Amino acid sequence: MNPRYTIGLDYGTNSVRALVVDVANGKEVASAVWGYAHGVEGVILSRDPNLARQHPADYVRGAEVTIRRALASARKSVRGFEAGQIVGIGVDTTGSTPLPVDSKGQPLAFRRNFANNPAAMAWLWKDHTSVAEAAEITAAARQWRPHYLAKCGGIYSSEWFWSKILHCLRTAPAVFNASHSWVELADYVPAVLSGTEAPDQFTAGVCAAGHKAMWNANWDGYPDAEFLSKLDPKLGSLRKRLTTRIATVDKSVGGLTPQWARKLGLTAGIPIAAGAFDAHLGAIGAGIAPGALVKIIGTSTCDITVVPNTAQLADVPGLCGIVDGSVLPGHFGLEAGQSAVGDIFNWFVNYIQPGGKAGTHEALTAGAAKLKPGESGLLALDWNNGNRTILVDQRLTGLMLGQTLYTTPAEIYRALIEATAFGALTIINRFEEYGVKIKQVLNCGGIAEKNPVVMQIYADVTGRPMKISRSAQTCALGAAVAAAVASGVYGNFSAAQRKMTGIKPTVFKPNAKAHGVYKQLYALYRRLHDAFGLGEDHGRLDDVMKQLIEIRNRARR
Amino acid sequence: MNPRYTIGLDYGTNSVRALVVDVANGKEVASAVWGYAHGVEGVILSRDPNLARQHPADYVRGAEVTIRRALASARKSVRGFEAGQIVGIGVDTTGSTPLPVDSKGQPLAFRRNFANNPAAMAWLWKDHTSVAEAAEITAAARQWRPHYLAKCGGIYSSEWFWSKILHCLRTAPAVFNASHSWVELADYVPAVLSGTEAPDQFTAGVCAAGHKAMWNANWDGYPDAEFLSKLDPKLGSLRKRLTTRIATVDKSVGGLTPQWARKLGLTAGIPIAAGAFDAHLGAIGAGIAPGALVKIIGTSTCDITVVPNTAQLADVPGLCGIVDGSVLPGHFGLEAGQSAVGDIFNWFVNYIQPGGKAGTHEALTAGAAKLKPGESGLLALDWNNGNRTILVDQRLTGLMLGQTLYTTPAEIYRALIEATAFGALTIINRFEEYGVKIKQVLNCGGIAEKNPVVMQIYADVTGRPMKISRSAQTCALGAAVAAAVASGVYGNFSAAQRKMTGIKPTVFKPNAKAHGVYKQLYALYRRLHDAFGLGEDHGRLDDVMKQLIEIRNRARR
Repeated sequence: MNPRYTIGLDYGTNSVRALVVDVANGKEVASAVWGYAHGVEGVILSRDPNLARQHPADYVRGAEVTIRRALASARKSVRGFEAGQIVGIGVDTTGSTPLPVDSKGQPLAFRRNFANNPAAMAWLWKDHTSVAEAAEITAAARQWRPHYLAKCGGIYSSEWFWSKILHCLRTAPAVFNASHSWVELADYVPAVLSGTEAPDQFTAGVCAAGHKAMWNANWDGYPDAEFLSKLDPKLGSLRKRLTTRIATVDKSVGGLTPQWARKLGLTAGIPIAAGAFDAHLGAIGAGIAPGALVKIIGTSTCDITVVPNTAQLADVPGLCGIVDGSVLPGHFGLEAGQSAVGDIFNWFVNYIQPGGKAGTHEALTAGAAKLKPGESGLLALDWNNGNRTILVDQRLTGLMLGQTLYTTPAEIYRALIEATAFGALTIINRFEEYGVKIKQVLNCGGIAEKNPVVMQIYADVTGRPMKISRSAQTCALGAAVAAAVASGVYGNFSAAQRKMTGIKPTVFKPNAKAHGVYKQLYALYRRLHDAFGLGEDHGRLDDVMKQLIEIRNRARR
Repeated sequence: MNPRYTIGLDYGTNSVRALVVDVANGKEVASAVWGYAHGVEGVILSRDPNLARQHPADYVRGAEVTIRRALASARKSVRGFEAGQIVGIGVDTTGSTPLPVDSKGQPLAFRRNFANNPAAMAWLWKDHTSVAEAAEITAAARQWRPHYLAKCGGIYSSEWFWSKILHCLRTAPAVFNASHSWVELADYVPAVLSGTEAPDQFTAGVCAAGHKAMWNANWDGYPDAEFLSKLDPKLGSLRKRLTTRIATVDKSVGGLTPQWARKLGLTAGIPIAAGAFDAHLGAIGAGIAPGALVKIIGTSTCDITVVPNTAQLADVPGLCGIVDGSVLPGHFGLEAGQSAVGDIFNWFVNYIQPGGKAGTHEALTAGAAKLKPGESGLLALDWNNGNRTILVDQRLTGLMLGQTLYTTPAEIYRALIEATAFGALTIINRFEEYGVKIKQVLNCGGIAEKNPVVMQIYADVTGRPMKISRSAQTCALGAAVAAAVASGVYGNFSAAQRKMTGIKPTVFKPNAKAHGVYKQLYALYRRLHDAFGLGEDHGRLDDVMKQLIEIRNRARR
């Protein structure tokens, strides 16, 4: 039978990638990356360090450039490959990255008078200009709609949809007033490819709507107009202009337009899957299923699991979001995360620059690998960038204790790795405390790929095997899997994932002795975590340093 | 009138120094340093990292070499200088550094059969082989003689006299059995110069006896034989062979012998002052008096003050010792200290080696100087080598919190400096809480001499002016002052110090605004100090990181 392929389009912070995948076996036959043309590495900055925008022209051009190049590459690497074998396209993006559009669904930034106005561009996920509005929304929801907050960890973030729109309304009213509506990047790209940008055709993915815009089927979709009007009457009236068509990623939002088909050499009408965030489609690409936790480990982590939506599920406190269908259709998507993992190691290497030239990640990892658990006598909290889950508190900072006059950089590096592992275990425990059983952990992302020392420490700390995703591009692969389902190649994700995703042969298994030591260290970590993170009395701490010394002495024996 | 001079002989860990001082004005006219010939930089080591010994031959030769060279140097630098103008010699040494001697007061290490036996040598202050014996002595005293412990901070140390002798008795019985008695280095050198080594002539200084051997006039001198016999009957019978002649440093233990006079070209019979520890004579050289705290700041600190012994004085808990006459005659000498100060900065520079080549003390100090109090958001505990005062706990370790993804080496360096300043303030507060008013702070030692940034931070943290000793050799100068009093040039220390000691013109005055910020930071330091250092419940800590962020934000405004 003639092979069939799908394309996964993965919009990152600095670049976009197109991945061509064989739907029969998940083989990634070709890919192409294009760095955005605008701004600094694709991000438009200003004097305000909180501002981070992108130009929507880069999104459109990025689809064209990467798909053409990926197809050209596939023609070279696969004998007999033809673009006609592409049966669908899936899209994943950063988010919440909303952009204002006009009454035809076209970005305001495409108009000449707004072409250089950052407020008319896409407000990138990491734009932090809307801190005041986020606090205002959180306070309002706490007072009038507490159930809105229960699904997003108790605090509405400055990185999210409504905060950004409200900030635009307050600080760039000309842009807000010119906008008909606002759309997420994850929904904009599928709409462009399928020609469904116009409001009467536009479909939004449930992932972005549910995790970032407080959309929930249980309360009739987006926050009600009365609530939004309390923030600003114009926000209340905007609600009427948001789409009511909300889709999971198994659904096609429309077929590829003839214009795009011509431009790319693809078949017109092939389905375009509803878009979702990179981490959520990454979870699919890594093989997520009930009982599996997918950890996407990079500068920070995204930790995702799913629970069938027929199950009773409590509001797990401290999570980033619980959204029906945000990952797999028919399942609650549960999102947690650590505010910094690789970023902590990067801080130590790039800012502290320990050990002169011996202070590379490679050298420090090699030094850390030689140490036994507990041997350093150090214990750290992984809060250099705050704590996303389970404390949901950005105003927490790092802590390290146990330093002597002989503490080395490699010991500190290992303690930092261990701290992130303890943070990971805290998230797993939180899921299980609320009845969400984690039966396996699937890791992906750069650190999982490249650092076996980190993965072994994670196994030893958690007492669980660490599996690594077979693909190095799980987000784009997940988008390609979505396309395979949306195009009907597979009837459901379970069947598609079985064929298209998998893990590497090497599984990091916990060492029982190391796990025993880490159990003691984790108990101390939790006491520091609770003492500095929770608003509760917590008894004595004067034994912490001494217990570390005893653990150290036993490790050195 | 013909100028008169005294010699201060200062026995350090690696070398001995002779300083020739004009008694009329304290002018240091000549000095000479000689590194000990035995061991590694003067310290005899073994496979056991706790072992640190010195060969007593170095002490005798060191006196001869340095005094001869210093006199030669004086002849060059002072027109008409003659050795006959030297009117007395004072001696300060490390301690507790006891050595076993025979029935004539001669070191056992001088015998051929013991010449290479470390147990027969001097047990240097930092020898830590006697940890078990120290614990045994502490436990015994707690049970039977709690008043012994009250004068030495509640714990008898492995660095001290009885611990070392008991360890020798247990592990090198041949040496112990061959010994007639044990003497401190601080007493041995004056005895050698005055020919009073024989037991019937030997005088011990009250400084070493009181601070390290639990000698106290209130309980008839050394610990009683019954108590010592509980540890070991041989220790009980040793007590009878210890001297009952105990002297303060204003007293001469005897005149310079004709043999030594001939060897050195000095006048026979000039008084040799009773010996004392370097820090205690250093306090005199820095100008100590009631109300003054002398801080000798090096790798660690020694903090010394005096109180007239006519005053009512409580047992100040957490001090290293309270001994009548250990510094100035007629005054209680109160000794406190920080286990590491310069050593913490050295650890950061030498072990962590931050910032590549930019990680020198000079570069980090320059970077730290540019920061405002509170600006880094960091807070540290200065416990990398434990806490000597006020917690008396070597099993405490370092702690740092407030790290972000942007924390720099200079910020950490400043936080470490501030931590040692907070530790210094805690000692000052402890004195004052027990009625010992500190009216001025006199600093000496390498860091006080060389690092104005550290001194300004100390002034800002404590809210007190920091004065710096005029002399860079306060220990040797103090020994020379003692010699001036012992030889009758001055009738008392107050008169001698007025002429011979002084401070530098530059005084570091506290900045009111900086002190205001440090008051807030110190409150947080004390909460961490008490939480991790004291065995008490201590309420909540969850506001600590947030308060640091608020202080940081105000500092950056």
